[in-house]
Amino acid sequence: MAAGMASVETVRVELGERSYDIVVGSGLLSQAPAFLAPLRLGRRGVIITDANVEPVYAEPLRATLADAGVESKVVSVPAGEESKSLRQATRLLRRMPSFRLDRQSFVIAVSGGVVGDLAGFVAATYLRGLAFVQVPTSLLAQVDSSVGGKVGVNLPQGKNLVGAFYQPRLVLADLDTLKTLPERELRAGLAEVIKTAAIRDAELFAWLEANIKQVLALEPAALTHVVRRCCEIKAEVVAADERESGLRAILNFGHTFGHAMEALADYVGLLHGEAVAMGMCCAAELSVRRAGLSPGAADRLRRLIEVAGLPVRVGDRFAVEDLRAAMHLDKKARAGKVRFVLLKQLGEAFVSDAVTDEDIEEVLRVCR
Amino acid sequence: MAAGMASVETVRVELGERSYDIVVGSGLLSQAPAFLAPLRLGRRGVIITDANVEPVYAEPLRATLADAGVESKVVSVPAGEESKSLRQATRLLRRMPSFRLDRQSFVIAVSGGVVGDLAGFVAATYLRGLAFVQVPTSLLAQVDSSVGGKVGVNLPQGKNLVGAFYQPRLVLADLDTLKTLPERELRAGLAEVIKTAAIRDAELFAWLEANIKQVLALEPAALTHVVRRCCEIKAEVVAADERESGLRAILNFGHTFGHAMEALADYVGLLHGEAVAMGMCCAAELSVRRAGLSPGAADRLRRLIEVAGLPVRVGDRFAVEDLRAAMHLDKKARAGKVRFVLLKQLGEAFVSDAVTDEDIEEVLRVCR
Repeated sequence: MAAGMASVETVRVELGERSYDIVVGSGLLSQAPAFLAPLRLGRRGVIITDANVEPVYAEPLRATLADAGVESKVVSVPAGEESKSLRQATRLLRRMPSFRLDRQSFVIAVSGGVVGDLAGFVAATYLRGLAFVQVPTSLLAQVDSSVGGKVGVNLPQGKNLVGAFYQPRLVLADLDTLKTLPERELRAGLAEVIKTAAIRDAELFAWLEANIKQVLALEPAALTHVVRRCCEIKAEVVAADERESGLRAILNFGHTFGHAMEALADYVGLLHGEAVAMGMCCAAELSVRRAGLSPGAADRLRRLIEVAGLPVRVGDRFAVEDLRAAMHLDKKARAGKVRFVLLKQLGEAFVSDAVTDEDIEEVLRVCR
Repeated sequence: MAAGMASVETVRVELGERSYDIVVGSGLLSQAPAFLAPLRLGRRGVIITDANVEPVYAEPLRATLADAGVESKVVSVPAGEESKSLRQATRLLRRMPSFRLDRQSFVIAVSGGVVGDLAGFVAATYLRGLAFVQVPTSLLAQVDSSVGGKVGVNLPQGKNLVGAFYQPRLVLADLDTLKTLPERELRAGLAEVIKTAAIRDAELFAWLEANIKQVLALEPAALTHVVRRCCEIKAEVVAADERESGLRAILNFGHTFGHAMEALADYVGLLHGEAVAMGMCCAAELSVRRAGLSPGAADRLRRLIEVAGLPVRVGDRFAVEDLRAAMHLDKKARAGKVRFVLLKQLGEAFVSDAVTDEDIEEVLRVCR
C-alpha cells in the first residue's frame, strides 16, 4: 500500500437473508451508484440527513445518484440528539407519501448516529419496510451505530425506547467525510473505538496505544485499519446475537454510567462518546473491584482514553446521588436490573448484575 | 358434537421461528392464562382496547390474568378507524414507560381490526418489539385482520402506509365475543368470509350458500366452522408469502374498489366490509369481462353477498369519476400500478394489472 493511500475494504455482516456489506474506504460517496447497483433497488428514494450535513454530503450524493438515473429527494432534520424523537419520525413519515415511493424504493441515511437511527426507523416502518442504506459521516457512526440494525428514537423517559431491529442493506463508511468532522466529535468517536478494543480485542487495544495519534491525524491507513477492525468486531458480535438476548450486551461497556450522565446533562453539552469515556473509567474501576481486572489494565484503559483527549473523571458535574438515581430511573423505565459490563482483562468482557449500590457509589467517588 | 356445543379448534400458522397458533372456540377469554402459559411471557403487560370493548372484555381479561398472577394495565383508545393514526400510536408509546415493562412483557390487543393493527404497531416498536397477542372480538378481525402479522396505522394520504410485518405469538378468537357485536358489523365481517371463499375455496363458498343463516344466527358449530376455515386459508396464504411479494395480494379481492369507496366516504358511515362487499361485486363484473369468469358465478357471488345483508350496488353515493380518481390517488401515494384481483372461477383468483380505465368506468356504471 502506497503511503497515504488507503484501500477499500469490505466487512460482511452474516445474518442469513439479512446479511450485508460494510464498505470502508476513501472516495466512496462519489462511487455510490456502483456500490448500490448490486442491491437492485428501485429508481426512486429518499435521502434523510441533517441541516449541517445536507449541503456537504447529502446534496452531492443526490446529484451523483441523479446522474446515474436514480431519483431521490433530500429531507433534513435539525442537527442534534433532540431530532431522535417520535415527533421528527412522525414529521418524516407524514412527508413520505409526497415522494411517491413504492416497496422497491430506498431510504439512505447520511450523517451521524442520530440521523441513522431516526432514518432507519422511518425506513423500517414506511410501507412496512423499505430498503435502508447507511452512509455514516461521523467516526462514532462508522465504527458503531451504523452497524447492527438497531434503529429507533428516544422518549422523554429514556433513550431508544421506541424502535426496531432492522438491518441496512449496505453501509458505506467513506473515510473522507471525517475530514469535516469537528475534532471534538472525532475524539468522541474514539471512545467507541477504545470500548470495542477493551471488550473484545487486546491486540487492537495495544495497536491503539501505539497509533492513536495517527488516527487523530486522520492518517488514511490508520483510519482504515481502525474502522474496519471495529466493524469486524461489531459484525461478529451482532451475527452471534442479532436481537440482543446475550453477547451483544457487552457492547454497552461504559454505557450504564454514560447513559446516566447523558440523561442528567439533558443530552446538552456532553457528547455520547464523552459520557461513555467517563463511564468506561467507572466501569474499569468497578471491574477491578468485582471482576479481578488488574489495576494496571485499568490504568492502561484510563491512559488511552486520556491520550484520545477524552474526559476520565466525572468531576463535580454530577452528584453521586443523582447518577445513582438516574441509573435506577432507566431501570424503572425498562423494569430491568441495573446491569454492568465488566472486564476480566483487556479484550474480555461479561455482563454482571451482581453490582451493588455501594459498589456504584464507591466507584463514583473514586472517579470524581 | 352435541347440538349447540362448539369445540375448541387450533389453526397453526407456519412461519418458522415466527409460527403461532390461532385458537377458535367459545369461552376462551376466561381460560386466557392457560392459553398464554406455554408462551412463557413475563408477568407484566399491557392490554390495548377501545372505549366500547374495555368494560365488556378487556377489563374482565385483566382481572382473569391478575387472578393468575399476571399484572396488566388496560389502555383504551376511542372506538373507530380514526384511532388507527400516528397520533394514537405516539400517545400509546409515550405512556408505555410508566408501565415498567421489560423485553419479556407483552401487549394484548382486545377489540376489532383497528385496535389490533394499532396495538400490533406499538408492540412491534416499543423496546424494539414485545410479545404480541391478538384477541379479536369482531368477526372481521377473527377471520382476517388478526391473522398474518400486518400491523400499522393510516396516514391522511392513505391507509396502512406506516407499519410493520410483525407476527402475533397467539390469536385467541373467542366466538362468544360475537354475541355483543352489532348485527351490522357481523354482516360486514361476512364480507371477508365470502371473499376468502371466493378467492380460494369453492367448497366453503357452497357451504356458505347453504349455511349463511346459521352463521348470522351465531349457531356455534357453523361459526366455528367458518372462522376456523377462514383462518386456515389465510394462514396458508400468509405462510406462502409472509411479506406480500406475490400470492398474498389475492387477499385484496374487492379491496381496490373498496378502499376507494372508503376513502371517498372519509371512513365515516361505511364499514370496511360493506365497501369490500360492493368492491367484490365490481371485481366480479371485471372478472367476467377480463378473466373469463362465468356470468353465473358472478351472480352466485352477488346473491351470497346480498343474502348476507350486504350492499351489492354502489348506487349514487359515489360518482364514477371520483372513484376512479381515488384509485389513482392511492396508486400515486405508493407509486404502484392500480392492480386488481380477478376471479377465474369461484375459488380461484389472480392479480392483474392489465385493467384499463375504460374497464373500470364501465364496471362502475354497470354496478350502480
